Amino acid sequence: MNAPPLRIGIAGLGTVGRGTLQVLLANAELLTLRAGRELRPVAVSARTRDKDRGVSIANLRWHDDPLALARDPEVDVVVELIGGADGIARGVCEQALAAGKHVVTANKALLAHHGAALARAAEKAGRTLAFEAAVAGGIPIVKALREGLAANRIHQLYGILNGTCNYILTQMHREGREFAAVLKEAQDLGYAEADPSFDVDGVDAGHKLAILAATAFGGEVDFAAVSLEGIRHVSLADVRFAEELGYRIKLLGIARRTEGGIEQRVHPCMVPVAAPIATVDGVYNAVVVEGDAVGTTVFEGRGAGEGPTASAVVADLIDIARGRGLPAFGVPAARLEKLARAPLAKRRGPCYVRLMVVDRPGIFAAVAASLRDHEISMESVLQRGRAPGEVVPVVMTLHEAAEAALQRALAEIARHDGIVEPPRMIRIETFA
Amino acid sequence: MNAPPLRIGIAGLGTVGRGTLQVLLANAELLTLRAGRELRPVAVSARTRDKDRGVSIANLRWHDDPLALARDPEVDVVVELIGGADGIARGVCEQALAAGKHVVTANKALLAHHGAALARAAEKAGRTLAFEAAVAGGIPIVKALREGLAANRIHQLYGILNGTCNYILTQMHREGREFAAVLKEAQDLGYAEADPSFDVDGVDAGHKLAILAATAFGGEVDFAAVSLEGIRHVSLADVRFAEELGYRIKLLGIARRTEGGIEQRVHPCMVPVAAPIATVDGVYNAVVVEGDAVGTTVFEGRGAGEGPTASAVVADLIDIARGRGLPAFGVPAARLEKLARAPLAKRRGPCYVRLMVVDRPGIFAAVAASLRDHEISMESVLQRGRAPGEVVPVVMTLHEAAEAALQRALAEIARHDGIVEPPRMIRIETFA
Repeated sequence: MNAPPLRIGIAGLGTVGRGTLQVLLANAELLTLRAGRELRPVAVSARTRDKDRGVSIANLRWHDDPLALARDPEVDVVVELIGGADGIARGVCEQALAAGKHVVTANKALLAHHGAALARAAEKAGRTLAFEAAVAGGIPIVKALREGLAANRIHQLYGILNGTCNYILTQMHREGREFAAVLKEAQDLGYAEADPSFDVDGVDAGHKLAILAATAFGGEVDFAAVSLEGIRHVSLADVRFAEELGYRIKLLGIARRTEGGIEQRVHPCMVPVAAPIATVDGVYNAVVVEGDAVGTTVFEGRGAGEGPTASAVVADLIDIARGRGLPAFGVPAARLEKLARAPLAKRRGPCYVRLMVVDRPGIFAAVAASLRDHEISMESVLQRGRAPGEVVPVVMTLHEAAEAALQRALAEIARHDGIVEPPRMIRIETFA
Repeated sequence: MNAPPLRIGIAGLGTVGRGTLQVLLANAELLTLRAGRELRPVAVSARTRDKDRGVSIANLRWHDDPLALARDPEVDVVVELIGGADGIARGVCEQALAAGKHVVTANKALLAHHGAALARAAEKAGRTLAFEAAVAGGIPIVKALREGLAANRIHQLYGILNGTCNYILTQMHREGREFAAVLKEAQDLGYAEADPSFDVDGVDAGHKLAILAATAFGGEVDFAAVSLEGIRHVSLADVRFAEELGYRIKLLGIARRTEGGIEQRVHPCMVPVAAPIATVDGVYNAVVVEGDAVGTTVFEGRGAGEGPTASAVVADLIDIARGRGLPAFGVPAARLEKLARAPLAKRRGPCYVRLMVVDRPGIFAAVAASLRDHEISMESVLQRGRAPGEVVPVVMTLHEAAEAALQRALAEIARHDGIVEPPRMIRIETFA
C-alpha cells in the first residue's frame, strides 16, 4: 500500500471510543486492505488519562484538551465521541472542520440541533462530515438512504430508534410487568440511564428521526419539527389490550411526506403483529424505508453499544480513507430545503383509546355522543363483564380520524361524569 | 451543476431495462441533485426496436448490436441487462471495460461464473464494475457488505435469496397445497418461469450466494464451491411437521467461515419460527449478516422486479457519477483470496428426517440402531396413532451430527425393510 495512512484522532474514550480503538486494532490488516491505506489512530483525548480501558493508549498522542486534538496538525480525521448538543463536542467538530480535518461523529444531539450548520461548515472546508454512528449504529441506514436507495424518492420512513424504550416495552409484553418496574430493572442492568428522560420521553429517538428525515428528504435537520411523546404513560393494561386486538406497542419515529409537508413524530404506536417491525424486540433497532422504485425495505440491527457503534464509526473512516466522502446529507448544503412542516394535528389515522369508567348506565352513551359530535366513528369496543359502581376499563378502537378532532373529542370525554382518569390514546399505524 | 452528464447506454430492455429508464426519467431532477451531475441515458440496444415499453426510446441512440453499444464512444457507462453466464452479456461487459467504460450489471449468472475475471478486467481498465442489482435488488446488500459493514470481519451471512422459492414455500404453508400445484400457480402469475429449474433447484440462489460470499470474505467468486439443493422434494407434509415442531421451511443460502474454510450452501432449512428470517414471506428476500463488531444485522426487501432492481442499478450509476467507484468485491482484484472450501460433508448440525414406514413391529428399532451405529442421537420422534400394515410417516429431529455420518445413516436406513421411500432430510439451522 503506497497511500499514506489516514491519521485518526479520537475525542472521547467512553464505550464507543474504546470500541473504535479495538476495531481499528483487531481488524487492522483487513481494514488496510479494504481502505487501500492504513487507518492509524494517532491521538486521543478524554477526561482521565490513566484508566484501564482494555485497550492501550500508550502509543497515542494525548491531549488534555479535546479542542487541541481538533487542531492537531498531525491528525487527518477527528472522531468526536464526547456527546451533547453544544459545548465541547460542538467546538471540537467546528474547529476540526475549520482546521481542514474530516469529522466523524456519533453525536445525534449535536446533529439534530446543528446538523445543517455543520454540513455547511464541512462543505466550506471541503471536508467530510460523517455520522453513520449517530443513528442505529448496527444498521448502515445513513449510507442506505444517502447511497443505496438514492435512486428513490422516499415516501416515508419509520423505525424503532431507541433501544432502551424497545427493551422496556418488550419486557412489559413478555413478563407482564409495569413500566416503572421494568425501567428500574433496565437501570440496574445498565440499559437505561439514572435519569432516563432522554430515552423514555422520546428525545433520543427524535434526534435520530430528525437526522434520518433530513437525509431521506434532502432537507435541513429540523428537530423542532418533531412531535415528541414518550412511553411513560403506556401501562401494562394497554400492552395487554394491544395483544388482544392483534397489535404490539412500539415507540416509533415516523417521517412521512404528505401533501401538507413532512410529518415528523415520535410516539408509542400500536402496530399489527404481522408487521415486520412488531417483532423487533429488546435492544434491537429497525428502520423501514419506503421509496417509489424500491418499495418497502427493512433494516434491523443493534441500536447502540460498543461494537455496533464502533462498526459504524470505522465504516465512515474507511469511506474517508478511500476518498469517498459525500455531502453530509447527500446533497450540497446550499441545496438542503427548509422542509415544510406537517404538524401532528394534521395527522389522520386510527387509534386506540382506553377510558377508566365508573360502571353505571348512561356513561357510554355520553362517550359515544362526544365521538359522534366530532365525526369520529368507532371500530370496536371492549368492555369485560359488569362491576356496577366500580371503575372498569373501556377500550375502543377508532376509525381513521383527524388528530385535532380526536384531541377535542377526548378532552370533552375527559370532562364527562364517571370518567375517572384522563383518556389514554395510542395511535394505530398499519403502514398499509 | 457544472460537471458533464454521465452518459448511459443500456443493453437489454426487458423489465429491468424499462424500469431503469423510468427511474432515470421520473426522478431526473432528484438524481442530478444527489449525483452532482445529470444521469443521462443516451443509447440502448434490445432485441426489438419497435415495441411499446411504456417509456419512449425515440430520443436515444439505437444499436442493433449490443456489442456496438458496448463500444459506443459517446457512452460512459454500459448497463448490461441481457443476462446469461456467457455469450453476448459477457461480451458486452468485457468489451465495455476494454473500451474504458464503467459497467453496471444485474447479471448474477455472469458474476457467479466470471466475477473474479471481470473484476480484474475492470481494475486493469481503471473502471468500475458494479452489481448491486445482481443480488436482491430491493436490498442494498452489496453496498452494506463492501462499505457499511466494512469494519467487520464477517463470520457468516445467510438469506432468502430467491423470491420464487420463497413464494412457493409461503403458499404451501399458508394454503396447505403441494409444491407442484403452487408452482403451477406461480407460473400462471408470472412469478416462476416456464422452465423453473433455475429457481426451484437453487441455482439462482447459489449464484447470489457466491457473489455475496466473495464480497463478504474478500475471495474470488467460487460458484463451484456452492452445494445446491432445491425445494422440489419439500412436501406439504414436511411443511406441516415443521410448523408443529416450531419451525418454518425456507430455502436459504448460507456462507459461513469455519476452521476448515468457507462453507457455501443452498438448501431448504427449518428455521425457528421466532428467527427474523422465518416470517419473511412471499416474494421478499432477506439477508442476515453477522460481523465481529456489529453483531447481527438483518436486511429485508423485494428480491426482484422492475422497481427494486432498477433502484439498485441507478444507485450504482449515482456512485459512478459521483466518482465513487470501488474495487468490485471491495478489495483489489489481485488481493482476492482463493477461499478454502469447507464442503457440505463437513457440516455439523441438527436435522429433521421424515421416513415413510410400513407400520409393523421392529422397524423403528432397526432405524434407531442405524442412528446409534453412526453416533447420531435423536432429539424427538413423532408418530401419530397406529395403522398396522399401512404406510405412515415417522418424523424425527436429530441432534447435531456430522453431515457425512448422517448421509451414511440415512442410506442404511433407506435399505431397511418397511422403509418405502427414500428418507427425507431437511437441515435445521438455528443460527444460535
